[in-house]
Amino acid sequence: MTDPDFHRIAIVGVGLIGGSIAFAVRRMFPDAIVVGVDTDDVVVAARQLGALTHTSTNLEGVRGADLVVLAAPVQANLDVLSSLPDLLGPSTLVTDTGSTKRAIVQAADAFASRLTFVGGHPLAGAARSGIEASRIDLFERRPWVLTPTTASPRAAVSRLAGFIRALGARPLEMEAGEHDRLLAFTSHLPQLTASALMHVVGTTVGVEGLELSGGGLADTTRVAASPARIWTDICTTNTDELLPALDRLIETLTELRADLNDSRPIDRLFESARRWREKLK
Amino acid sequence: MTDPDFHRIAIVGVGLIGGSIAFAVRRMFPDAIVVGVDTDDVVVAARQLGALTHTSTNLEGVRGADLVVLAAPVQANLDVLSSLPDLLGPSTLVTDTGSTKRAIVQAADAFASRLTFVGGHPLAGAARSGIEASRIDLFERRPWVLTPTTASPRAAVSRLAGFIRALGARPLEMEAGEHDRLLAFTSHLPQLTASALMHVVGTTVGVEGLELSGGGLADTTRVAASPARIWTDICTTNTDELLPALDRLIETLTELRADLNDSRPIDRLFESARRWREKLK
Repeated sequence: MTDPDFHRIAIVGVGLIGGSIAFAVRRMFPDAIVVGVDTDDVVVAARQLGALTHTSTNLEGVRGADLVVLAAPVQANLDVLSSLPDLLGPSTLVTDTGSTKRAIVQAADAFASRLTFVGGHPLAGAARSGIEASRIDLFERRPWVLTPTTASPRAAVSRLAGFIRALGARPLEMEAGEHDRLLAFTSHLPQLTASALMHVVGTTVGVEGLELSGGGLADTTRVAASPARIWTDICTTNTDELLPALDRLIETLTELRADLNDSRPIDRLFESARRWREKLK
Repeated sequence: MTDPDFHRIAIVGVGLIGGSIAFAVRRMFPDAIVVGVDTDDVVVAARQLGALTHTSTNLEGVRGADLVVLAAPVQANLDVLSSLPDLLGPSTLVTDTGSTKRAIVQAADAFASRLTFVGGHPLAGAARSGIEASRIDLFERRPWVLTPTTASPRAAVSRLAGFIRALGARPLEMEAGEHDRLLAFTSHLPQLTASALMHVVGTTVGVEGLELSGGGLADTTRVAASPARIWTDICTTNTDELLPALDRLIETLTELRADLNDSRPIDRLFESARRWREKLK
């Protein structure tokens, strides 16, 4: 990639995702200017780690960028988005990396005449967060969903898809509503479940009881270590899709409860789960 | 360990746990006879892998052993236990590795005059099962619960604890009922939750939808790959403790459902879960 499509890239929110994008951009496009916008301690750390060429502690840092990536939690991205039309022209491509897509896409559509926006969601993550957890290969071979609307210029979608491929990921177009419905099950419900489980187990057995656990509890609750803030935003912007997802889980657990002493139906559930788990990777 | 306390060890059920015990015994006590009792294909494979010195496809294989380890699923262990008084004298120490302890301990107590039994449960496991998944270091530094009753001779408990230490594990005495209550939360509930979640997600989004998942779903459902049989037995022998555990989880998920659009209470739950998760290892 000697002729990158973007020469000045601003990343707003330099945590795990923003930091990993920054590292990957610096490797693929060594001549690009990469501006990180975040609090002072974060951008200083990110620059020392080599993720950024320039830093800013306020949104003025996005001025002049030809690509702006919003990589903060969903609600922060929404707040930032509303300021962008005053800072950028429509030749700048704006995208985000949030885990819910309808809210941001609807907000961006309201600015469509003044802002070129294509929503995005890289399906990559880690139990740890922050710039220190960033990895240059975080997106390699991972799906990266794009959720263009009728307001999104096709040329912008193609440019963004090319950028995402350059980072090693697989761009995948999808309607924002379909994204939110699917991710409610494949990402948000697992997180809610892991957190609810960890809360119940911890508060019931205490620290000494936790000694009596093995890899099962550790694996099942790994994502419960995620920062609360990220997930609170996801819940409030995907409530309608999460309700039926939670309902289905509660229903299944309630059936299991009724069948606990009857080996046939539980065996069926465990077998179904085992077969589906084998289809996962 | 040049003078092992046991010279002929029979392991009934040569899967992940039985196989890993066999490997560890062979390393620590190279002169010991290690008899594996299981189906023909399993014992042949285990012997070829070097886990066993002798094999048997029926319970006659336990005759003459000074230590018998029941390492099959819980219900199979219970079935085997009832045959042992006709095959062994009271000088043989019998233990098991099952994930629930009251059922086997009660069954053994009924034979107390003819059988020396101390229940056990190594808190070690892996998502994969079977002799091929066995690991010589599976128990290293892991807790290994012992659940003696008033019928268990103290000398037998000490001998078994010494054996467990020789395998690298940490013996930990506990009342069988306390074990079952704690493990309902720290092990059995995570398994039920992972299986229910995997079933719900798989049946809702299908194979294509599963492509849109990251490490979160994979981690949270890892143990759902366990063989159904093992867990069905655990549910039927720990029903009374699993009911309140499932109730607490369903209750928490139901509260979460009601609060989804209200960031304060969800934030509290996520924060509580995050703090508890940090205390786990």
